[in-house]
Amino acid sequence: MLRRLALIGVFLPLSVHAGESPVENWLLKTDMWGNTAYQSLTLSQDGNVLSGTFDGDKLVGTRQGNRLDFTVTDSDQATYRLKATVDGAGMVGIADDPDTNAPGKRVTHAFTGKRLPARPTGSPKVYTFTPKDYANEFSATRAPVLTVWPGDSIHTRTIDSGGVDEKGNTVALFGNPQVGPFYVMSAEPGDTLAVHIKRLRLNRDYADSLDSIVGPALGQSLAGKAQELGKPVRWKLDLARGLAAPMSASPALASYSVPVRPMLGGMAVAPGFGSPAMSTGDTGRSGGNMDFNQVVEGNTVYLPVYQPGALLYFGDAHALQGDGETSQYALETSMDVEITVDVIHGKTVPMPRVESPTQIMALGQAGSIDEATRAATTGLIKWLAQDYGLTLSESAQVLGSSVHYAVANLAGRSVGVAASLDKALLSQLVKPARP
Amino acid sequence: MLRRLALIGVFLPLSVHAGESPVENWLLKTDMWGNTAYQSLTLSQDGNVLSGTFDGDKLVGTRQGNRLDFTVTDSDQATYRLKATVDGAGMVGIADDPDTNAPGKRVTHAFTGKRLPARPTGSPKVYTFTPKDYANEFSATRAPVLTVWPGDSIHTRTIDSGGVDEKGNTVALFGNPQVGPFYVMSAEPGDTLAVHIKRLRLNRDYADSLDSIVGPALGQSLAGKAQELGKPVRWKLDLARGLAAPMSASPALASYSVPVRPMLGGMAVAPGFGSPAMSTGDTGRSGGNMDFNQVVEGNTVYLPVYQPGALLYFGDAHALQGDGETSQYALETSMDVEITVDVIHGKTVPMPRVESPTQIMALGQAGSIDEATRAATTGLIKWLAQDYGLTLSESAQVLGSSVHYAVANLAGRSVGVAASLDKALLSQLVKPARP
Amino acid sequence: MLRRLALIGVFLPLSVHAGESPVENWLLKTDMWGNTAYQSLTLSQDGNVLSGTFDGDKLVGTRQGNRLDFTVTDSDQATYRLKATVDGAGMVGIADDPDTNAPGKRVTHAFTGKRLPARPTGSPKVYTFTPKDYANEFSATRAPVLTVWPGDSIHTRTIDSGGVDEKGNTVALFGNPQVGPFYVMSAEPGDTLAVHIKRLRLNRDYADSLDSIVGPALGQSLAGKAQELGKPVRWKLDLARGLAAPMSASPALASYSVPVRPMLGGMAVAPGFGSPAMSTGDTGRSGGNMDFNQVVEGNTVYLPVYQPGALLYFGDAHALQGDGETSQYALETSMDVEITVDVIHGKTVPMPRVESPTQIMALGQAGSIDEATRAATTGLIKWLAQDYGLTLSESAQVLGSSVHYAVANLAGRSVGVAASLDKALLSQLVKPARP
Amino acid sequence: MLRRLALIGVFLPLSVHAGESPVENWLLKTDMWGNTAYQSLTLSQDGNVLSGTFDGDKLVGTRQGNRLDFTVTDSDQATYRLKATVDGAGMVGIADDPDTNAPGKRVTHAFTGKRLPARPTGSPKVYTFTPKDYANEFSATRAPVLTVWPGDSIHTRTIDSGGVDEKGNTVALFGNPQVGPFYVMSAEPGDTLAVHIKRLRLNRDYADSLDSIVGPALGQSLAGKAQELGKPVRWKLDLARGLAAPMSASPALASYSVPVRPMLGGMAVAPGFGSPAMSTGDTGRSGGNMDFNQVVEGNTVYLPVYQPGALLYFGDAHALQGDGETSQYALETSMDVEITVDVIHGKTVPMPRVESPTQIMALGQAGSIDEATRAATTGLIKWLAQDYGLTLSESAQVLGSSVHYAVANLAGRSVGVAASLDKALLSQLVKPARP
Repeated sequence: MLRRLALIGVFLPLSVHAGESPVENWLLKTDMWGNTAYQSLTLSQDGNVLSGTFDGDKLVGTRQGNRLDFTVTDSDQATYRLKATVDGAGMVGIADDPDTNAPGKRVTHAFTGKRLPARPTGSPKVYTFTPKDYANEFSATRAPVLTVWPGDSIHTRTIDSGGVDEKGNTVALFGNPQVGPFYVMSAEPGDTLAVHIKRLRLNRDYADSLDSIVGPALGQSLAGKAQELGKPVRWKLDLARGLAAPMSASPALASYSVPVRPMLGGMAVAPGFGSPAMSTGDTGRSGGNMDFNQVVEGNTVYLPVYQPGALLYFGDAHALQGDGETSQYALETSMDVEITVDVIHGKTVPMPRVESPTQIMALGQAGSIDEATRAATTGLIKWLAQDYGLTLSESAQVLGSSVHYAVANLAGRSVGVAASLDKALLSQLVKPARP
Repeated sequence: MLRRLALIGVFLPLSVHAGESPVENWLLKTDMWGNTAYQSLTLSQDGNVLSGTFDGDKLVGTRQGNRLDFTVTDSDQATYRLKATVDGAGMVGIADDPDTNAPGKRVTHAFTGKRLPARPTGSPKVYTFTPKDYANEFSATRAPVLTVWPGDSIHTRTIDSGGVDEKGNTVALFGNPQVGPFYVMSAEPGDTLAVHIKRLRLNRDYADSLDSIVGPALGQSLAGKAQELGKPVRWKLDLARGLAAPMSASPALASYSVPVRPMLGGMAVAPGFGSPAMSTGDTGRSGGNMDFNQVVEGNTVYLPVYQPGALLYFGDAHALQGDGETSQYALETSMDVEITVDVIHGKTVPMPRVESPTQIMALGQAGSIDEATRAATTGLIKWLAQDYGLTLSESAQVLGSSVHYAVANLAGRSVGVAASLDKALLSQLVKPARP
Repeated sequence: MLRRLALIGVFLPLSVHAGESPVENWLLKTDMWGNTAYQSLTLSQDGNVLSGTFDGDKLVGTRQGNRLDFTVTDSDQATYRLKATVDGAGMVGIADDPDTNAPGKRVTHAFTGKRLPARPTGSPKVYTFTPKDYANEFSATRAPVLTVWPGDSIHTRTIDSGGVDEKGNTVALFGNPQVGPFYVMSAEPGDTLAVHIKRLRLNRDYADSLDSIVGPALGQSLAGKAQELGKPVRWKLDLARGLAAPMSASPALASYSVPVRPMLGGMAVAPGFGSPAMSTGDTGRSGGNMDFNQVVEGNTVYLPVYQPGALLYFGDAHALQGDGETSQYALETSMDVEITVDVIHGKTVPMPRVESPTQIMALGQAGSIDEATRAATTGLIKWLAQDYGLTLSESAQVLGSSVHYAVANLAGRSVGVAASLDKALLSQLVKPARP
Repeated sequence: MLRRLALIGVFLPLSVHAGESPVENWLLKTDMWGNTAYQSLTLSQDGNVLSGTFDGDKLVGTRQGNRLDFTVTDSDQATYRLKATVDGAGMVGIADDPDTNAPGKRVTHAFTGKRLPARPTGSPKVYTFTPKDYANEFSATRAPVLTVWPGDSIHTRTIDSGGVDEKGNTVALFGNPQVGPFYVMSAEPGDTLAVHIKRLRLNRDYADSLDSIVGPALGQSLAGKAQELGKPVRWKLDLARGLAAPMSASPALASYSVPVRPMLGGMAVAPGFGSPAMSTGDTGRSGGNMDFNQVVEGNTVYLPVYQPGALLYFGDAHALQGDGETSQYALETSMDVEITVDVIHGKTVPMPRVESPTQIMALGQAGSIDEATRAATTGLIKWLAQDYGLTLSESAQVLGSSVHYAVANLAGRSVGVAASLDKALLSQLVKPARP
């Protein structure tokens, strides 16, 4: 039990009463030598006897008035003793934990807790959310902007990577400012968050880009000349015809236009405890500035959950983008977004996945394209094992005959490679019966 | 003038007579301290005075009976003096060359020469060629199996990578044995050879593969298990329906079949002087075991010419192949092949290119996917500059909005990445008028 | 002028009086849409007229009582107008800045300021600092623990990477908790911080390590077996004899001991504005968890300054470490540390540098060893240009004959390569006279 | 039994008679569809009954006069039947082998054989060998220039990488022309060849280099400027004082000199059957153009044997070289060389190893520095297992505390990384008793 916990003081007013629910859900927030751990606590009461779970492990204890005292035993048989005082929808307490550095020793940590609301009636709901500010980090400690439940939808707007909204106003700091985080009730570390992109539409008539070529795309023979690049290029977006064309184009490009394909460059959940906040320019297993041109309307992104509530962020929409985002800035613009969230409990994905109506795609991200290719392949094999029950030998045959690789992103600290398979082929697979 | 030359003793009987052609074409073969250099010689005679070209540089000299004596001056003003005695369609001689290691010193090399035939009447021709043996190296010294002219077509058969023909007989050593080389008249170093794949069809009902996953595709978490892989998998080829399915498949794959897409895994010209023969398992700028699944019927492969006659080889056909040839062996099989060759004189391509009816594709090959990606991008930018007149800034805009990257090959010493663009988009470009 | 500014509320009590210093030094802290920018302000007053600098650019303005109003013009001729009210050693204000996204538009940001102390008398000083807590991020927003001046020394203690101190108590969260940050007066973005490691000594008799082999060191043939590794290995440190030996060693290693060579695995300054806090497990141009076994007593580390005061952190000491830290944990232990800091004003280093009595070493860090090698070489060439005046051609000759490359670190997200040269050779270079 | 065999017609006259030796040693040379396989054959005769080994597998058969007929069974129980006619020290025959592509089918191959000489009396010997020509490929089919036995020494001279000898004459084609191959009697595939470098001395007073920086060393920020590099730089070699200094140096380098450290850039054995000849500019597991500055006098190079007789080549000496040979050409010069060869029977090394009086060094070579680092580490772990009996866990502890990594070579198609350990530390290891 590595994760430690405490209260986010940011939730909507509670709409449940103690009498309504036999199981109480709490979010605990623990101070770990100046670092914050969040953990879920569920409590059931039978007389004075408490049972439930804490961070996924079973607890037993007692409740005397507003005093809780319970012990958690994790899968390694380590025990954690928590004592707390409840005050309405809050609690404060002290955890007495094993010192993982020194067998036999114990350490204590203070925590607070906040009771989580019950699900509103009339679900699933569609929320229209108007951002008031934007995040420049994918952080576990930023206060959630909205709490939703699996099946709920969020309709909102994103601004461009420079912080400019659909009206042309700068409303946030450059560097891919994101909307969020959205707290998705019931999502726990080890689960998977599914983000269905229901609608992704242009809402202004221009996008900003550069004439750059990023280093990972550029051979040394051109590197000298490329240092003269990097000039801003504004593209006109023809919303009616769905075309983008460079404005003030040179004669060669005067007639060049490309069909738009709106995508979200950024989407992530908060990193887990022990991992610091991630820059909105960075990527990792939790997603991030993936800049993958398959994150489009109609597709679903799957992300591994590392924090209670998942804490979903997204932003940095592009009107379109070539593979690799080789121009450093894609066609950066603001966007109307509608997503629906779901949680797959107990299923862990090792990296971001994208599913389209016709393909499954695993997105490997690493410090080199070589390692990203390995990660993507490994991720796709994992997918075949999880959802199709394939052995490694069977996956090898499927990949050898059928896999596609695209270089998704070359513009960040990590680069991305997508390994994909056609669902029409996979539909021929016979999933073995489970014993 | 680096390249030195001599006679390939392998050409078809000469069908020209001295009187018919005022220009004689010769192929010289020079012994460079045990290494063989091939160079083209053209000779025109006016009285005793000789003019012409040698390895692309101008020559002047005299002919006295069967004795030739001429001097070549290259672009660095270095001079080469060649003296030879002609005997029918052959010659023998001595070249007196500058010592490139020591200004002022000279070195001598013996050479032989063979006169090249004139173009047969009735061109272009379609040759049906039945291989008698196969090459396990892309070599400049292997005797040409056929001499053709630009516009001619060759109809032949390739065997599988293990050396097995369409009847199931082992007729060559494993390791991608190739048909060739084909000597393409008029092709010179600095030119580009275009190979149009007119027809590429299955001619037997099975293909051999493995259940492997190659190292560059495989993350370390699976590497342990992957050591148990590598078992042969035979695939049934349904020629009528165009489907491939693993034979003796496990239940999960019992219904798995994939549409065939016949491709040539191997295609190369001979490496240039100073580069040794290349294994038919290897790749380079001259092509090779590219294992790129876009080398299919209807597409054209462009290769840089490094030797007189280009010396084209091909083989190692696959019934189909996923990106990267991740199973080490694709669906290896024999094939009916028809190609048409063309030469683009004076145009140099820096690496293999493939053109389909809808796309242009530059194939970067290097020791890592990172470097192959750089090479492919650089190659595509060069293409845009050569054929579309784009500046680097313009190319950056086209790539950023429109480029596709596929990982072509992970199974060789060099890996391959293809950078491609849609011709429909490129058709919008306005090529600048040349001053 | 990208950087924006505001007050760190954390400095020691001011020991200066307005009358003593004609130039006031302030640190401003600006809220940039929820992100914090720090910038230095110097003010001189002549009557009501203000002059000085703000973030390195000149300012002009007026002071009316406690009201400041001044305008800054940067090198691009953009203007910033700041108005503030001074209250003792603090100020609050509003900056009116150009909108970098929209020529002609302006944006406003609130800021606070704190006056910085004058240099104490009796400098340079040696401070003995006892940490009260530790940092798990290299952050610009963490309050400085001590303010020092160039030439001052700091004597302190570091704890091990797991958070355990010299007494064996866990006092911080795992993940290389660091001491700091130390605010170095007069250090400004664009300067270089020199950290002389005066003393680095073991202070407990054991170190903790693993029997791991990190992925970047491990071929696939061993990856399967390596998954059984990762077990803790405690090493006995013989402080008297300066030897480390694995405890509970297998028979083969029962007599194995290695001379200790104490080093600091972690050392960094805070990242610049726009870059988020960096994990203490990560590295970058500002240093970080470099895990370079040349960061030892007697050597000097040079780091680029990105924030006013540099904000120096260090920690994660190792009793010794092989190149690359291939065991993921080196011999992790606590340490007595004494450093002396210096600032080289106006000199920018592009990456961490280390200088020993005999060598100069540039530490390239990147997502692959290939790119880290390029970075290290480029960094060494820059060093030769800056300090020795060498042209690129001259550097090429020096490197080709004399460079050493060591793989410094393989255990982090970025890997490190050190390129080094012997100072005895470099002492032969003749620095050209500057015109 | 993959390897097929036949006679090299190049050996010294036989000095043995049938009556002297009960065991006959032959080298067979088999034509494998145009490719040549070499294999060793030992024959013992008892009446008409033959026994012995062929390519390491046991044979049984009969001899009737000069007719041999024997059957070989390999470890997979596949059988090979060879029939031959002996004529003095030669034989010709036909092998009837399994068709590895088609169970049940057989294929036939013609072979020739030559009887190998017995060891001369008075061994070990020191041979003085004067090269008559040089090899531009590491090839299995080039005729051996000298046959030696384990323990024998060879004293010879190498020329520089451009083909220039100690008198300044161009005597071979550029591209690292090598001396050899030397046939080392008794060396068989699966053995290890040890090459002790007894003496390596300069024999002329200049070396040729460039002012280049190779691509793998060069960051993109310098790539533009670096295109102006590549100019020849001649270095004066002061043989008496052991110093090298650039001639015609710029003022900055006018006093720059570096102690020479003569090394052999090239050393390799012939590749195995199925691998084509390797360019003398290339490297692989069999060695090659390693350009590793530890291949110096006093050190030993270990190479894996892939062909009967090993077929050793060496050349491309450097007066000195920085790590990585970053200038593309090191200080290229001719050299006096004396080596002693040994064979370690039955021990296989997976890659080149170098041993100095103080260190063991495994040289990993691959298409990227990342993969070369993995190869080097894997090679060093293999060494620790083979010679010191260490488990992977024990090796992990030794490496983590004690390994050194140097980047050996950046100038070839493959790059090289050396992982090394100090023998003083390793001498503390206790080799476990074998059960």
